[in-house]
Amino acid sequence: MRYGIVGTGALGGFYGGMLANSGADVHFLFRSDYEKVLKNGLRVDSVSGDFIVSPTDINAYRSTIEMPKCDVVLVCLKTVSNCHLKSLLPPLLGSDTTVIMVQNGLGMESDLARDFPGLSIAGGMAFICSTKVADGHINHADFGELTIGSHTVKDPEVLEKVGIDLKNAGVPAKLVDDLNSFRWRKLVWNIPYNGMTVIMDAGTDELMGEPHMRQLINELMLEVIAAGNTCGTHIEEDFAAKMMDYTDSMRPYKPSMKVDFDAGRAMEIGYIYSNPIRFAAENGFSMKLTSVMERQLKFLSTKYLLR
Amino acid sequence: MRYGIVGTGALGGFYGGMLANSGADVHFLFRSDYEKVLKNGLRVDSVSGDFIVSPTDINAYRSTIEMPKCDVVLVCLKTVSNCHLKSLLPPLLGSDTTVIMVQNGLGMESDLARDFPGLSIAGGMAFICSTKVADGHINHADFGELTIGSHTVKDPEVLEKVGIDLKNAGVPAKLVDDLNSFRWRKLVWNIPYNGMTVIMDAGTDELMGEPHMRQLINELMLEVIAAGNTCGTHIEEDFAAKMMDYTDSMRPYKPSMKVDFDAGRAMEIGYIYSNPIRFAAENGFSMKLTSVMERQLKFLSTKYLLR
Repeated sequence: MRYGIVGTGALGGFYGGMLANSGADVHFLFRSDYEKVLKNGLRVDSVSGDFIVSPTDINAYRSTIEMPKCDVVLVCLKTVSNCHLKSLLPPLLGSDTTVIMVQNGLGMESDLARDFPGLSIAGGMAFICSTKVADGHINHADFGELTIGSHTVKDPEVLEKVGIDLKNAGVPAKLVDDLNSFRWRKLVWNIPYNGMTVIMDAGTDELMGEPHMRQLINELMLEVIAAGNTCGTHIEEDFAAKMMDYTDSMRPYKPSMKVDFDAGRAMEIGYIYSNPIRFAAENGFSMKLTSVMERQLKFLSTKYLLR
Repeated sequence: MRYGIVGTGALGGFYGGMLANSGADVHFLFRSDYEKVLKNGLRVDSVSGDFIVSPTDINAYRSTIEMPKCDVVLVCLKTVSNCHLKSLLPPLLGSDTTVIMVQNGLGMESDLARDFPGLSIAGGMAFICSTKVADGHINHADFGELTIGSHTVKDPEVLEKVGIDLKNAGVPAKLVDDLNSFRWRKLVWNIPYNGMTVIMDAGTDELMGEPHMRQLINELMLEVIAAGNTCGTHIEEDFAAKMMDYTDSMRPYKPSMKVDFDAGRAMEIGYIYSNPIRFAAENGFSMKLTSVMERQLKFLSTKYLLR
């Protein structure tokens, strides 16, 4: 299996790096990191063992036009760059290529299917603490599970092979039948914390330490669960309590949206907030609390990021 | 009529100052301003004419214990200090005293009535741009109307006399029958702007200039109108559009809550947010959007003000 990694950042660098380090045939698309990686390789400092994919071993590219067709493409871009996929992906696509969208939020697979009718598409959700600390240098601090589910994958064996390759590479991979449910489940955490840490300029621990905010977060979780369940999921209500407990047990954490905002980068408002709100509305459910956050985030985006 | 002013800040200093300047018998409670006022008098720079209530003319006190009983007491404290009224007010209260709560929000009259059963109580709403710029020095930049309505006033002539005294002093005064309605009407503006300028760290003009935030503000106004109407008011829906137009026409403005927050002072969350939410809930209406703001403000209060 030949793998293409589109977006070699915190996620693509880690998962692609692990695959390459295990001997898989991996081809990386780099942008600003390209020169540095040609010189020093791709460095991954990981809780499960540091390694470097050396300059002689790495298949590094600056453009997808130079890349070979791949059996599996992991799209590890931030969703704010998905508008570029229409031009980025075609060189990588053979007749049997499967594209896995390793991203947060909802609706990216159907957006991609609209641009590439008939394409074999899956979704991936990373449960990981990983950061790009410098060009060509990834720090993997905790966790690492990658959950993958089909959106329009025709050959069920493809994802099984991907799962095996990932496991051989030391990545805990999990294949799921119901991608939609897993995307909504992840939103139960992402919707309250990603945006609220930005809006309140606070860490997860600070939010959880103030009783009124804690209650609001719990209500947001219940709203996401109710919204998901009107969109075909079957998430039990006590999943909110589990996520609260889980967050209490975490070390203070800066969600990806807060990291992006603090660095002056675009926030993934569309796929994490607007799409869930829209899908729920189409099914007759109004995500009122979430809508407040969405508008506040759009305001902050206009005020601080788009100037 | 003898007037007592409890809380000689931006409001008490202006309204009390105007009354005193017109020759009315006014007695002022000062705190930090006391020494300065004894020396320099109470200075009011006003768009309708500057004046000073001179040290020889002013009746200034440091404690209500030293003050005479009054016919009318204007309580111009921030509502966060209302917990002190139980001890502050008694020296001022004769058998026929009327207390007018010149404050923003909802429910302060009934709270006072609980502590002083049988007391003649009214509410006042100031529509004014006035600031205390230094000890004993008020700047009145725009507007000035004071709307007054009875809560438990037994003698209807009292408020009429107050209205006449205010008009003689150059204050546009308006007496209304339905205090509850007017308090809710004022909340239609205060709930979106007071809190959102704090949460977003932005002026009213910035909020109004971003289309998603604009829409959220409009929805908040409609929610307050709907809540008020379940609590016995009859506010027409297009009042929201009027308030939007009105705000568009205003100069960029920092609402009182934003001024307080930026100065590190307590915010009036209880009377402007928690009480309306509670009253609406008691009448079967859930102010979901407003509740998000309330919790965000309580979080910010804990994080920045109560440490």
